Amino acid sequence: MTTRRRLLAGGAVAGAGAVAAAVVAGGPDRAVPAAATPPDDTGTATVPFHGPRQSGITDEPPAHAAFVAFTLAAGTDRRALGRMLRLLSDDAARLTRGVPALGDTDATLAVLPARLTVTFGFGPGLYTSAGLPAPVADLPRFAIDRLERRWSGGDLLLQICADDPLTVAHTQRMLIKDARPFAAVRWVQQGFRRSPGVQAPGHTQRNVLGQLDGTANPRGAELEGAVWNADGSSTLVVRRIRAEIEKWDLLAVADKESATGRRLATGAPLSGQDEHDEPDFAALDPSGLPAMPDFSHVTRAHVTDPALKILRRPYNYDGVPDAGGRPDAGLIFAAYQRDLVRQFLPIQRRLAEKDLLNEWITPIGSAVFAVPPGCAEGGWIGEQVLA
Amino acid sequence: MTTRRRLLAGGAVAGAGAVAAAVVAGGPDRAVPAAATPPDDTGTATVPFHGPRQSGITDEPPAHAAFVAFTLAAGTDRRALGRMLRLLSDDAARLTRGVPALGDTDATLAVLPARLTVTFGFGPGLYTSAGLPAPVADLPRFAIDRLERRWSGGDLLLQICADDPLTVAHTQRMLIKDARPFAAVRWVQQGFRRSPGVQAPGHTQRNVLGQLDGTANPRGAELEGAVWNADGSSTLVVRRIRAEIEKWDLLAVADKESATGRRLATGAPLSGQDEHDEPDFAALDPSGLPAMPDFSHVTRAHVTDPALKILRRPYNYDGVPDAGGRPDAGLIFAAYQRDLVRQFLPIQRRLAEKDLLNEWITPIGSAVFAVPPGCAEGGWIGEQVLA
Ligand code: HEM
Ligand code: HEM
Repeated sequence: MTTRRRLLAGGAVAGAGAVAAAVVAGGPDRAVPAAATPPDDTGTATVPFHGPRQSGITDEPPAHAAFVAFTLAAGTDRRALGRMLRLLSDDAARLTRGVPALGDTDATLAVLPARLTVTFGFGPGLYTSAGLPAPVADLPRFAIDRLERRWSGGDLLLQICADDPLTVAHTQRMLIKDARPFAAVRWVQQGFRRSPGVQAPGHTQRNVLGQLDGTANPRGAELEGAVWNADGSSTLVVRRIRAEIEKWDLLAVADKESATGRRLATGAPLSGQDEHDEPDFAALDPSGLPAMPDFSHVTRAHVTDPALKILRRPYNYDGVPDAGGRPDAGLIFAAYQRDLVRQFLPIQRRLAEKDLLNEWITPIGSAVFAVPPGCAEGGWIGEQVLA
Repeated sequence: MTTRRRLLAGGAVAGAGAVAAAVVAGGPDRAVPAAATPPDDTGTATVPFHGPRQSGITDEPPAHAAFVAFTLAAGTDRRALGRMLRLLSDDAARLTRGVPALGDTDATLAVLPARLTVTFGFGPGLYTSAGLPAPVADLPRFAIDRLERRWSGGDLLLQICADDPLTVAHTQRMLIKDARPFAAVRWVQQGFRRSPGVQAPGHTQRNVLGQLDGTANPRGAELEGAVWNADGSSTLVVRRIRAEIEKWDLLAVADKESATGRRLATGAPLSGQDEHDEPDFAALDPSGLPAMPDFSHVTRAHVTDPALKILRRPYNYDGVPDAGGRPDAGLIFAAYQRDLVRQFLPIQRRLAEKDLLNEWITPIGSAVFAVPPGCAEGGWIGEQVLA
């Protein structure tokens, strides 16, 4: 039955990836292709777990994510960490292939991986427990921060992403069980992007504030240089950023656009016409003022040196509103870069100092993780660090 | 740009509905069709809001749902209710077509309806406020109940469903704003099923416990008779049922199957071979015991008279686990039927009295709603009750 269901699920959606790709290649002005083919099987598609670099970073973010942070139990030393990471790597590798975890107590939920990835991050505390110098340190406090402990820190992070929420839930459950003898759950943040098929892959998605979010992310060779160290390692910042949506809602479209530096409808910089036009910070608007406001989010965040860019891979969150109906929504802002200090920190410092958007966003959680290289089949994530 | 994006999103997935339908029609034993076409545009697909019956009930449940319950403000009388419901109906109708709400503060988020439905339920308190006799009353307390106020009751319910979580979030936000002058948010329950395209539509999905859930739901003419009154009205029960998953995990597959009365892999009754075989409660297993255990969930819940069946339309929930990693997961169990007292209550009474599954599930929330008929364009939900 399992196989039958997989085949059926596969059959219903087979072949569509190609079309989507064609649409993307055609660019936004190309008409809808006559003979559309559907996306590759949404349920059974897989992303390889093994390799010199971890997955879940430069691949296209799937629709659902759970960021699970752990606090190591006292006495989880280097040896114990190795045992834990072996277990976790082994089960993560199985689940990403659609194979049940070892001792999977709900094996029927393992068969539709839906592009499942599990990405491991090591917090400063993990290195301390292992008796090793930590390659990352908590971010300094910024004046804009209103950090809550319940969304901050963590010795170990598992970033679990898949195109299906039940797959994420099951993976989360199995991996938490693996970690339980070694670590307590510190926080879990669940987030979403557009469902598979709702937008053509590769097109920029809107966030809960209605903005096109991701436009200026590095691509191709720039992406390579910005994210990956030679050994396949990277670093990750996870910030929970509350959107003050009710205040945002009071703004006219033009004011939202000034705060961001980009048009709401098209994502084009205020100095340009199309989403992917380079912002021109010298351009003046008809009244002689800078077209890109000096303190717009994009003006302040902009980086020209490709080696200093960061890869933003955010997910939206939308919790339960309060009795007055005020939403609990925002971004699980996840950013990958080779070097926190050279790449992420200067941007965050500039934004914390001055960014029009700050009036409508509040960082309420923050955590940093070293992202160790990937591993080969039979290996485990962290072996280069801990073995 | 908005239109362009819609076209693009549309193009990438156009034409797939037909294939999926073909797969379903072929049944589980049919091989995968050679020329698969993809599901109708996941992002731009719409479900009509207007009609003699409300949507979001007998249509195929989309992947994401928010159940939003309100408590009416003191003084929200029949006239005020009419004003509120006109606003809500109008915006719900727009949003389900992919048109921004009136005064939509994030219009860019309105353009991908993704099969959005908004279904209205009236709790007993709404009738009291309107000075009318209530056609529904809270359920009696059952011995198994561990109800929490924060998941129970409600004067008005909006069941918001769509194939995209951002669409659900935006719709929820706009409709809560409409209701704000008249009502406070009492509770919100967010749930999920499989993402679009992960399984062929019409095939039974698994729930967080790993069971195929929905097999014995009425279909076709039986569905008509079970759900709809002649005037297009119905009733809805929403129960939040926590799954004691960690205890469930301790069970062997055979014990899970005995508790349910169906096989885990295939969903077949323990008396049969295939998912849709009728359970045979007289059949004996090789050891001479009833093949369907006397107290299995299916044995106890089973209804033979088609007019007394209920339509279960549940969503999974998966909240944040505690520090020990124990999940906060279960079902938002939503059931539609013409008559609560004749259809739902006897089943729930039998299950509360004796159901093996009770050891692994706990009702923690409960609410009942009358579901008024639909409305024509220009009309509003509730006009037959309140105008
Ligand atoms: C809720 C919080 C945030 C929101 C809603 C937000 C939104 C946006 C939007 C709409 C853009 C323009 C489109 C794009 O290129 O993606 C953008 C660009 C950018 N943001 Fe943010 N952002 C947030 C937080 C942050 C944070 C915390 C950082 C880093 C510390 C950051 C760094 C950047 C960078 C580097 C760019 C590209 C600038 C360029 O080179 O054009 N953002 N953001
Ligand atoms: C977390 C709670 C529950 C779980 C996990 C659950 C699970 C299941 C499963 C796996 C089946 C068999 C497959 C199917 O026909 O869908 C089933 C059948 C059924 N359940 Fe439940 N159920 C739950 C709560 C309830 C409640 C509260 C009711 C009503 C009061 C109910 C009424 C039924 C009915 C009427 C059937 C069909 C029986 C038949 O005619 O074969 N269930 N349920």
